Amino acid sequence: MKKIGVGVLGATGAVGQRFIDLLEDHPWFYVKFVFASEKNEGKKYKDAVIWKVSAKVPKSVSLLPILKCDPKSSPVKIVFSALDSTVAGEIEENFARKGCIVVSNSKNHRNDKYVPLLVPEVNPEHLGLIELQKNDLKSKGFIVTNPNCTTVGLSMVLKPLNDAFGVKKAIVTTMQALSGAGYPGVSSMDSLDNVVPFIGGEEEKVEKEPLKILGTLSKKGIVLSKISIDAHCNRVTVRDGHLETLTIEFDKKPSMVEVLSVLKNFKALPQKLKLPSAPLSPIVPREEDDRPQPVLDRNEGNGMSVVVGRIRKSNIFDIRLSLLVHNTIRGAAGCAILNAELLYKKNYL
Amino acid sequence: MKKIGVGVLGATGAVGQRFIDLLEDHPWFYVKFVFASEKNEGKKYKDAVIWKVSAKVPKSVSLLPILKCDPKSSPVKIVFSALDSTVAGEIEENFARKGCIVVSNSKNHRNDKYVPLLVPEVNPEHLGLIELQKNDLKSKGFIVTNPNCTTVGLSMVLKPLNDAFGVKKAIVTTMQALSGAGYPGVSSMDSLDNVVPFIGGEEEKVEKEPLKILGTLSKKGIVLSKISIDAHCNRVTVRDGHLETLTIEFDKKPSMVEVLSVLKNFKALPQKLKLPSAPLSPIVPREEDDRPQPVLDRNEGNGMSVVVGRIRKSNIFDIRLSLLVHNTIRGAAGCAILNAELLYKKNYL
Amino acid sequence: MKKIGVGVLGATGAVGQRFIDLLEDHPWFYVKFVFASEKNEGKKYKDAVIWKVSAKVPKSVSLLPILKCDPKSSPVKIVFSALDSTVAGEIEENFARKGCIVVSNSKNHRNDKYVPLLVPEVNPEHLGLIELQKNDLKSKGFIVTNPNCTTVGLSMVLKPLNDAFGVKKAIVTTMQALSGAGYPGVSSMDSLDNVVPFIGGEEEKVEKEPLKILGTLSKKGIVLSKISIDAHCNRVTVRDGHLETLTIEFDKKPSMVEVLSVLKNFKALPQKLKLPSAPLSPIVPREEDDRPQPVLDRNEGNGMSVVVGRIRKSNIFDIRLSLLVHNTIRGAAGCAILNAELLYKKNYL
Amino acid sequence: MKKIGVGVLGATGAVGQRFIDLLEDHPWFYVKFVFASEKNEGKKYKDAVIWKVSAKVPKSVSLLPILKCDPKSSPVKIVFSALDSTVAGEIEENFARKGCIVVSNSKNHRNDKYVPLLVPEVNPEHLGLIELQKNDLKSKGFIVTNPNCTTVGLSMVLKPLNDAFGVKKAIVTTMQALSGAGYPGVSSMDSLDNVVPFIGGEEEKVEKEPLKILGTLSKKGIVLSKISIDAHCNRVTVRDGHLETLTIEFDKKPSMVEVLSVLKNFKALPQKLKLPSAPLSPIVPREEDDRPQPVLDRNEGNGMSVVVGRIRKSNIFDIRLSLLVHNTIRGAAGCAILNAELLYKKNYL
Repeated sequence: MKKIGVGVLGATGAVGQRFIDLLEDHPWFYVKFVFASEKNEGKKYKDAVIWKVSAKVPKSVSLLPILKCDPKSSPVKIVFSALDSTVAGEIEENFARKGCIVVSNSKNHRNDKYVPLLVPEVNPEHLGLIELQKNDLKSKGFIVTNPNCTTVGLSMVLKPLNDAFGVKKAIVTTMQALSGAGYPGVSSMDSLDNVVPFIGGEEEKVEKEPLKILGTLSKKGIVLSKISIDAHCNRVTVRDGHLETLTIEFDKKPSMVEVLSVLKNFKALPQKLKLPSAPLSPIVPREEDDRPQPVLDRNEGNGMSVVVGRIRKSNIFDIRLSLLVHNTIRGAAGCAILNAELLYKKNYL
Repeated sequence: MKKIGVGVLGATGAVGQRFIDLLEDHPWFYVKFVFASEKNEGKKYKDAVIWKVSAKVPKSVSLLPILKCDPKSSPVKIVFSALDSTVAGEIEENFARKGCIVVSNSKNHRNDKYVPLLVPEVNPEHLGLIELQKNDLKSKGFIVTNPNCTTVGLSMVLKPLNDAFGVKKAIVTTMQALSGAGYPGVSSMDSLDNVVPFIGGEEEKVEKEPLKILGTLSKKGIVLSKISIDAHCNRVTVRDGHLETLTIEFDKKPSMVEVLSVLKNFKALPQKLKLPSAPLSPIVPREEDDRPQPVLDRNEGNGMSVVVGRIRKSNIFDIRLSLLVHNTIRGAAGCAILNAELLYKKNYL
Repeated sequence: MKKIGVGVLGATGAVGQRFIDLLEDHPWFYVKFVFASEKNEGKKYKDAVIWKVSAKVPKSVSLLPILKCDPKSSPVKIVFSALDSTVAGEIEENFARKGCIVVSNSKNHRNDKYVPLLVPEVNPEHLGLIELQKNDLKSKGFIVTNPNCTTVGLSMVLKPLNDAFGVKKAIVTTMQALSGAGYPGVSSMDSLDNVVPFIGGEEEKVEKEPLKILGTLSKKGIVLSKISIDAHCNRVTVRDGHLETLTIEFDKKPSMVEVLSVLKNFKALPQKLKLPSAPLSPIVPREEDDRPQPVLDRNEGNGMSVVVGRIRKSNIFDIRLSLLVHNTIRGAAGCAILNAELLYKKNYL
Repeated sequence: MKKIGVGVLGATGAVGQRFIDLLEDHPWFYVKFVFASEKNEGKKYKDAVIWKVSAKVPKSVSLLPILKCDPKSSPVKIVFSALDSTVAGEIEENFARKGCIVVSNSKNHRNDKYVPLLVPEVNPEHLGLIELQKNDLKSKGFIVTNPNCTTVGLSMVLKPLNDAFGVKKAIVTTMQALSGAGYPGVSSMDSLDNVVPFIGGEEEKVEKEPLKILGTLSKKGIVLSKISIDAHCNRVTVRDGHLETLTIEFDKKPSMVEVLSVLKNFKALPQKLKLPSAPLSPIVPREEDDRPQPVLDRNEGNGMSVVVGRIRKSNIFDIRLSLLVHNTIRGAAGCAILNAELLYKKNYL
């Protein structure tokens, strides 16, 4: 097949770099256009970026000229958006109104009525919103978003448990990686020998986004799930990989063996469709006492699997467990790319 | 007054060193005897220890000879025990049977029927167990213990809230410091760029010890509290200071202002008695969004205050908050010294 | 005595905070005026600062109003300057021209012909430049600077060795702390699991400043020392404390015992004058194999001593050693305060 | 071709694990036998190891039974030795005497008269020692060693410079990674917020081993190089990758452009022979100011290239630079595997 040339909005930032890194050697897509802030317009990508993902900027992107974030800059059919939320709202909408498909990692449109908040293993049927959105925008273009990095991991674990046992309540405490704050992000003076017990706006997202993701598609949009969630979000001194402790109350009362079995055997549409970025197992349980650990487990399934461990009884609710999600791969750029793969396979492109 | 010469059992270990550091310049006590494993018997303290608490071994202790952990080694009236749990059980009992007062940081006797599990701000009335214990041991000696480091912070916060509003359930996730594992303790290969989601035996202690501490003294011992606790314990890359997120359900439904007021105004017996190690405020609330932080707040009240922050409503229970306790001071040696000060002031010595 | 009210220029930055922290409870000085960038003018200090040195802003400074950095803002006799080098040059000169004594940590005037580059233990006689400077400025005011943090430690070790054995060449590799870059300074993404082998402008300072400090006062200014220095500067993941490895060639060929003795017994004018911030021993040698270590030794002498270790023969030059200097205390604010103490004792105030 | 089954001595340790990791999918070799301490004899490899290199033990090795380190345990033609130096000396010799080819990473035989201390890019002609060694041992077996991890990087950079300009003196300061100390190795209490300015026995190796490696093969053994080396070895908080600053005096006086060119264009026998583990470029210069950095550059050439940066004039000698070598790949297991590849290609197997 001929590869599809894609654009990356916000290509020089931390998530933008991750998009470019993950799209190198992608079987279906290649990076054809890089968009960034106007002050860098016309520069070569390699001269505009402070590249931090690996040793070197991929050659295929290195010399691309920076375009400004305007749909007139180039005739692109699909863009990945890693824009900062201060500007993402309007720019993404501009691209969509001009007929472009915007696959976004930004938070701005996540709660829009007709915008899918998509994790392909969890709610692929929410693609049904796209027709409503197109009508609304009066455009062939549209926006699809992925959730906040913490929410991606959480919702992937809640999904099979909710289907099997009915999730009522979930209390989650996160220990989140530094890369989630971008670059330069967290000062080393705040990070060394420390934990910061607060991440601005994060708890609200973690408590709200899963209700849409686990909600039901109706003709008028998404009917939110009734699950109650409490989040405590902390920043720890880890490069990549958000660790979360989770305590859950169910409608039914499963045994620990049943819980393990449901998580281990979870397969979903991306696995059936063999999407290129889909991990073999969306959820990988580890049975050792002391796993998952960020440094050992974050790259499971090329960073696309969620690793789960310490499944055990709760004294207060029904079960407890720990989960780990690679925040810049599965929780951000990788999830968006999987979203685009699903769109392609489902003939939205 | 003439200072009282005390002994330290397990004087060369991490907690033993902290005892020696905190007892330097203590107004009532001075370190007269240092006990450690037999292989070091007779060595000077400075030659037997790998001193890690500060730059230099305190001069007053530096040249003391190491004694073996046997009550016959010296006629000591009171010992602080920092013994490893593999040997603490028997040695502490030997000292108590020979008439010595053992103020222990070890876990071995914490759950003994007649041994107080003491945090002076929380349950000073549990000293009433001592008479029962003496009768049982047929000795003038006895053992008093302090809880696990994580539990000390937790129980100090639960105490005033329980008195005011009745605590029913508490879910706690901890991010615990490296020093809690002693020296050499956690390998740097497990710590760098990582969180370990498990600490052997810790969750059991955190779920069980508060029930005794918050229990009621009866003629036959302690009637355990009925609070339900769930703990998730994690090891993070912080030198000192355990951070804990806490979600609590109460009998009554206080406002956030009432919760803050109860915590802020909490004073207890050690403050009334002006014990030398007692902090002015056992609990110090911080109202900034991003506090408490280990690197900034662990030394509050010379490491003897618990710092609390992020008091806010829970979606599931009643309140949520974060707390920080200096694990080797308030959570270990400092708490034991405060226990000894209370014993002294109450004429048990 | 009545304490002297001083000003701090650049009071909200990292070094400015350290000045305020160290001047709390100073026996001779107290902070009366805080100067910072115009955008904060009029705010209370506590509201303008992101305080990072300790848990809380000292009460005595907390409510002081921010003044803009203009000598007309207040009638202050002496100011400590922690200004950023982008603005320090002109502002400091303005204050000096208006009759104010400026004790600066900034680099801008360090190489000015008549400005002392002062470490009180090393070159107190360079105060002789002040008269030349006053004449030049046509003012009662003047500027005194302290060297770069790395240079302070280096020059303190070179001084007694140079006096005793004649230093010809020195090759130094530094491992510098994060606090040296201010706040937010180094990104945690660059710091975690990493060393950065470059600090902009640092090597030039380390190679050049000692030549002035170890130079000789003449009627026309300072005659530079002829020592050759090579510096390799690296940023490591340490909060405070610059570690330096040093290889030195001498004119004479001392034994290791002689070198140790010269360093150990070094006393200088601040020790004779008993200046309040002067450490008992400017240089503290450690004889253990694995010292000095930042985490253990940086607070030696309240952060004002340089700790030296690993003195041994070189295969190429004469000796090798490692040294540690607390970069924000001895290497910055503490050195400036010691400079001011010397000025006071020598009746320059 | 049919792959050759190899053994790994000390297979459960840190370097042993790295051997097993690197030999997975090797085109010529596969791990057939795993040898470790007697207490684990008979256990499955996965049950005897605390696997730290990646998420999971490679399947092909997972179920192999642990053999004791005795040549009678199995008929193996070639073994890689990752044995601890407390036992390596005798065991390696036993294997060699029984006819086995021992490719060792241990230090014990590095200085033996007839044992090559081999870095294939630097001194492949030293394989000429093998015949002398076989005669000496009266065996078909023999031992080949690779140098200490720090030395590997240093000697690879010195080699082309020495050939081109004649190296006379070199002063090196190292900032070495934690993995160099094995597992558990360095305590996190010594590593967090710290640098340790000492590594037992390391400086001696770094000063001595290059003299043999850069020495000349004669009929009686190796004539040592006359280069003088001074080493300062430090342990920093980095997982993998030793960073070294280097100051060199040459016989000739090259320009910086000539130095860069010599390093950049260095190719050697492994590149000509296209050995599977040989990197395309043994030395990769980076021209940015702030490179090489461990976190960005350690995996260059799959961890087999040495990355060099900051080439600049010295004030005292001729040039200065920084270099980075992946200590457990190029500096240990990877170098040993390259040694074995060279032996294979040169028909020693």
